[in-house]
Amino acid sequence: MSQPIDIAVVGATGTVGETLVQILEECQFPVGALHLLASMESAGSSVTYKGRNVRVREVDAFDFSQVKLVFFAAGPAVTRSFVARAQAAGCSIIDLSGALPADQAPAVVPEANAAVLVGLKAPVQVHSPSSAAVALAVTLAPLKHLLDLERVHVTACMAISAQGREAVGELARQTAELLNARPLEPRFFDRQVAFNVLAQVGANDAEGHGVLERRLVNELRELLGLPLLKISVTCVQVPVFFGDSYSVSVHSRKAVDLAAVNAALEAAESVELVDGDDYPTPVGDAVGQDVVYVGRVRSGIDEAEQLNLWLTTDNVRKGAALNAVQVAQLLIKDLA
Amino acid sequence: MSQPIDIAVVGATGTVGETLVQILEECQFPVGALHLLASMESAGSSVTYKGRNVRVREVDAFDFSQVKLVFFAAGPAVTRSFVARAQAAGCSIIDLSGALPADQAPAVVPEANAAVLVGLKAPVQVHSPSSAAVALAVTLAPLKHLLDLERVHVTACMAISAQGREAVGELARQTAELLNARPLEPRFFDRQVAFNVLAQVGANDAEGHGVLERRLVNELRELLGLPLLKISVTCVQVPVFFGDSYSVSVHSRKAVDLAAVNAALEAAESVELVDGDDYPTPVGDAVGQDVVYVGRVRSGIDEAEQLNLWLTTDNVRKGAALNAVQVAQLLIKDLA
Repeated sequence: MSQPIDIAVVGATGTVGETLVQILEECQFPVGALHLLASMESAGSSVTYKGRNVRVREVDAFDFSQVKLVFFAAGPAVTRSFVARAQAAGCSIIDLSGALPADQAPAVVPEANAAVLVGLKAPVQVHSPSSAAVALAVTLAPLKHLLDLERVHVTACMAISAQGREAVGELARQTAELLNARPLEPRFFDRQVAFNVLAQVGANDAEGHGVLERRLVNELRELLGLPLLKISVTCVQVPVFFGDSYSVSVHSRKAVDLAAVNAALEAAESVELVDGDDYPTPVGDAVGQDVVYVGRVRSGIDEAEQLNLWLTTDNVRKGAALNAVQVAQLLIKDLA
Repeated sequence: MSQPIDIAVVGATGTVGETLVQILEECQFPVGALHLLASMESAGSSVTYKGRNVRVREVDAFDFSQVKLVFFAAGPAVTRSFVARAQAAGCSIIDLSGALPADQAPAVVPEANAAVLVGLKAPVQVHSPSSAAVALAVTLAPLKHLLDLERVHVTACMAISAQGREAVGELARQTAELLNARPLEPRFFDRQVAFNVLAQVGANDAEGHGVLERRLVNELRELLGLPLLKISVTCVQVPVFFGDSYSVSVHSRKAVDLAAVNAALEAAESVELVDGDDYPTPVGDAVGQDVVYVGRVRSGIDEAEQLNLWLTTDNVRKGAALNAVQVAQLLIKDLA
């Protein structure tokens, strides 16, 4: 077993941060001192770790020289505010917020590009990418040698939980109001989200692409090592609490061998293939699990170069917290 | 005004049939005698038309020679059981079920291919296509001259109401059970549909394509007059009562002129363009309306030949009942 390592988790009270702490415990990560940090409003609460209630302290007052590894599990603004102090203290950093430039912190999904980490010397900066990029990289990396990838189309049906606890509460409240025929009062969202589909998640840029959509394109190209891959992505908000789903259509420059694709997915680490007449769903399969569920594997209609897939994954766990911990597991040999 | 015409509606008690009767009234369709028909189980109930309660009679006992025009608004099995009798009686037929072979009954969406009806002599057989094909044809037909269409990718987020009243009741019941922390008992669906996304709608064929998916491909090719158009489609079931949504990515063989596309959509009959920072949703915009809402119009990321769109439409009204009535309006000159 590796030497224990002192760790800080910034954003420990959020959905991702709390799950990250839970996964550190579950996988018996060699944690020395564990410092849980959050903004002033959340500091003072506590998070359970190995049966103890660990007090969450204010990140602003934290001395980063106490730890060797920092997870940034809050939003990008928080990372931007505090990352310089962690860097100055010589910490290795795993950023889940997407705030660090790609040339400073490579995106890593171990199932796709663990090799990027080989030979890096501490302190290291790694970017644990968006849940959409994790799901797609885990699924497409094992198919890379079978397909001559030209283009990927993705429609991402995103769960409410990616927006945080307030959004989760809003979906529950709106749903109850509608079922009880009470007037609907949107607060977190600007309109009805219960029994509805919202055509975008967050703000769009001047060309109409969402921040998450741009992020997925950049991250997936990096993770697959295909900087020119054409990727079309639409992220929509569905009234689901936990678990993202992805309708994926892949174009290869050569005919797709479906039997070989199925065999590769069956053998792939972190993929659970659901075939036959069944299909995976967020609630029934993905939530709470450590794999990406893949189903509806089929070629195109009258188009042998096309491969269609349906993915679903736990956006908080596999899509975020677990990937960050898996990256840390690969790093600890160098850091301890 | 046209001469009144005697009409039968088969499947008058279903969601689509009832809406169809309502639209006949709203648009002051020149109805002579109106015969509302349904299976034995639904016969005996009544549907409101122009303030009267019209008794629904059993289709099995109906003499089709009493009418000149029959709408088949129930499922394909019902159409197959009774269409021969309507044909033998010399009725014109508008089939909403997809049961008639394409070579006997052309698919018609007036905004896309009204010309198909010109010169037809009664009795006529027309196929009013699936709600997905209506939405896509209404949107893409006005863009045909601007794009050199090579391929269309569609992920359809389908509302529960397309599965009928029992499915609508099941979503409400499952949702209430979950909010009240009672054990979930799926009945109509084979699993939890509330707060979940189901990766297929209905059964799949041996190659893994759903019946609705195949139907959309065939219908859209016919409606656009592009028999070789490559179409990738995934239909998923979202926990939305009414209103389908479509994430659409279109490939042209030439660069897309976004300004021209926006102008064509703005000018298009039956399209309501939502632009700027806003976007349309099923609940907020489409439900109860007679148009297809189009938003998120944007090109591809690093791909000028790509056009991305988001559509939403009332699957029961614009997607089914209204299209059938619009077809009938074009036909009545010949039929009266």
